[in-house]
Amino acid sequence: MNQLNGLAPAANRERASQIMDNHGLAALIATTPENVTYTLGSPLRASNWTMQIYAVMPKEPSVRSCVIIPTNRLGVVAQTGIEGVDLYLYSDFFVEGSIEGKPSTPDIDRFYQLMQSTRSYAGPVEALEAALADLGITGQPIGVDEMRIAPEHLQRLAEGLPGGRAIPAYKLFREIRQIKTPLEVERLRRAAALNEQAELELIGLIAAGVHEAELAEHYRLTVMKGGATPAMTAVGAGPRSALPLIENYFRVIEPGDQVRFDLCLTLDGYWGDTGRTAVLGEPTAWQQRHFQAVRHGWEQALDTVRPGVKASEVFAAAVGRVQKEGIPHYRRQHVGHAIGLELYDDIILAPNDHRELQPGMVFCVEVPYYELGAGGFQIEDTVVVTEDGYEFLTHMERKLFLK
Amino acid sequence: MNQLNGLAPAANRERASQIMDNHGLAALIATTPENVTYTLGSPLRASNWTMQIYAVMPKEPSVRSCVIIPTNRLGVVAQTGIEGVDLYLYSDFFVEGSIEGKPSTPDIDRFYQLMQSTRSYAGPVEALEAALADLGITGQPIGVDEMRIAPEHLQRLAEGLPGGRAIPAYKLFREIRQIKTPLEVERLRRAAALNEQAELELIGLIAAGVHEAELAEHYRLTVMKGGATPAMTAVGAGPRSALPLIENYFRVIEPGDQVRFDLCLTLDGYWGDTGRTAVLGEPTAWQQRHFQAVRHGWEQALDTVRPGVKASEVFAAAVGRVQKEGIPHYRRQHVGHAIGLELYDDIILAPNDHRELQPGMVFCVEVPYYELGAGGFQIEDTVVVTEDGYEFLTHMERKLFLK
Repeated sequence: MNQLNGLAPAANRERASQIMDNHGLAALIATTPENVTYTLGSPLRASNWTMQIYAVMPKEPSVRSCVIIPTNRLGVVAQTGIEGVDLYLYSDFFVEGSIEGKPSTPDIDRFYQLMQSTRSYAGPVEALEAALADLGITGQPIGVDEMRIAPEHLQRLAEGLPGGRAIPAYKLFREIRQIKTPLEVERLRRAAALNEQAELELIGLIAAGVHEAELAEHYRLTVMKGGATPAMTAVGAGPRSALPLIENYFRVIEPGDQVRFDLCLTLDGYWGDTGRTAVLGEPTAWQQRHFQAVRHGWEQALDTVRPGVKASEVFAAAVGRVQKEGIPHYRRQHVGHAIGLELYDDIILAPNDHRELQPGMVFCVEVPYYELGAGGFQIEDTVVVTEDGYEFLTHMERKLFLK
Repeated sequence: MNQLNGLAPAANRERASQIMDNHGLAALIATTPENVTYTLGSPLRASNWTMQIYAVMPKEPSVRSCVIIPTNRLGVVAQTGIEGVDLYLYSDFFVEGSIEGKPSTPDIDRFYQLMQSTRSYAGPVEALEAALADLGITGQPIGVDEMRIAPEHLQRLAEGLPGGRAIPAYKLFREIRQIKTPLEVERLRRAAALNEQAELELIGLIAAGVHEAELAEHYRLTVMKGGATPAMTAVGAGPRSALPLIENYFRVIEPGDQVRFDLCLTLDGYWGDTGRTAVLGEPTAWQQRHFQAVRHGWEQALDTVRPGVKASEVFAAAVGRVQKEGIPHYRRQHVGHAIGLELYDDIILAPNDHRELQPGMVFCVEVPYYELGAGGFQIEDTVVVTEDGYEFLTHMERKLFLK
């Protein structure tokens, strides 16, 4: 065990504690990169599926979290400023030398100090069990994020738990993450801002003769220059605007084309996901009517968003309004989704999700329409639910962009 | 079920069939993106951990593979040219319209045809069971890649299998993937070529006053412009060259600095991983001696690489040589690793891996040395094992670069 001092991560430890209490759990073990990031404040990546990285979040909010990593990740911890957590290592990794009286840097100093003082265990389960023992959590039920622990390790871990069983906790982590902390809202705001800055640049570049692929590449490079990682980059022109997910680019933009964007990135682990539609030239009556129907549905969704309203009520209001405003046959599986460390966080604005909205939840609200042989429309924004409604994290004009 | 005709994916179906035979299995189910890519020839990405994507590889090599996807991924299949596989869908997703007599494109035509003809099931397990039934695989043992199927789905699937049990198959997929097909070697060659082109550009940019972060950004943008995805970008100058994994950048290069690169990317799902070391100015005797020791160890490793040699023999030869040539205290946990759809594919050139090298295996051979307070050295290349030795997939000069 070794202690790092410093900043607190983004996790809502009070909410986590409450949810652990409800399920009689003494700790939660994160295994997916998203839940590890949530627990530690910074991401740690594995180099293949065999490599196991775990983080322990004890029930008591004032007790420090732990991280279990292979020794070769220790330098990354030293560099990336994961702080306020205890470290447990496993597996061999050799670094020689000493920094006494030698040229060094703060991250190397820290790496050296961690190397000297952090204990290494035979494997990830042994390291995890040592962490739990140090926390005084032995013989108590714990929840384990079941999605990214190798089943053989989960089985060995479970053998030492009450009833020989670990409680599946992926959904519990997602429940905790439903309500974003102010630091998380800030990260989502930054992701949204970079995403819409890039999207506005793309709209600016629309012209006859421009290939969809040029727009997609511009997005990816802009996002990367902004320190983020581009993900799904849906850029569809003309008939291709009707394709929901777009990962390949074939079309050179022609006059009259409508261009639909649905753009995703991650920044410091948090997702941005924003959409708009543009037309090159004078929009047709069909384009105007369908965009306006979608726009009204989107407005209706937002008019419905406030604490205490059910996700399914937002859905019903939005779909009903689109049908009334010009697309009578409109169907949709959802009109938005929570966003955070996963692109689709927990709670979907869908007909079967009857959970109530609460302050601090962050949603992408979208009411797209896809018509093959005609075109597709997208308007997608991100909002945080407030005490009496919502606040936009996105600020682009909510119109059919004309070029 | 719907059939797509076209190109075969990269999988070695004959080898897979043999390994399934050895374990008495009628089919393998891929669940991780790497194994899904291996089975289908193209990747399909999920938008969170809840989303399940599976691919079925039947034992008989001439029988087509199947893919199980949520309906919203159907358009991606239509665009990305995943061919020669049967499709099984689950969950709702609405797209309206018709292409009869309307403006269209080949991918939209295909999407429309697939929408009309592909059946949708209640959930991923139902879709998977339908696929197995259509293949006539009922009541027979099957292997399931256990790493990326939600445990609740695995349990439900297992209930319908002989003995109520699915055989874990992640390691079997990795065993199949040990021997690369010619198409895989070609993809690894392209990944290596782009990676070293970018690395040479970085070496060209080394100068006093240049920040590590500028080099890292140049790498990432170059790789992205080349159609690939940058991953670990270790750029360490001066004392920071001794850090093994580098993900943060703090140093402005000074005269006399040694700069260590270890750069990773993926191109069409296949990894590139290459390393070199440079010195700005006249290298010191210490730098020369340590680089030469590492260089000799790397040469010794390659002199040992040929079919029939054990991975552990390559390790012992390389480490012994480094110790003899100038770093008597040299220690290392491995001197290379298989590379393919995972950065660390199966078989590591390590003291405890006694498996024999075979033609068609692809390895990154690396003999790095890290000394805190002094500096780090890296020389890493990629080779494919041939009938009588190996062939390089990388072609940069294997020297201490001087700037």
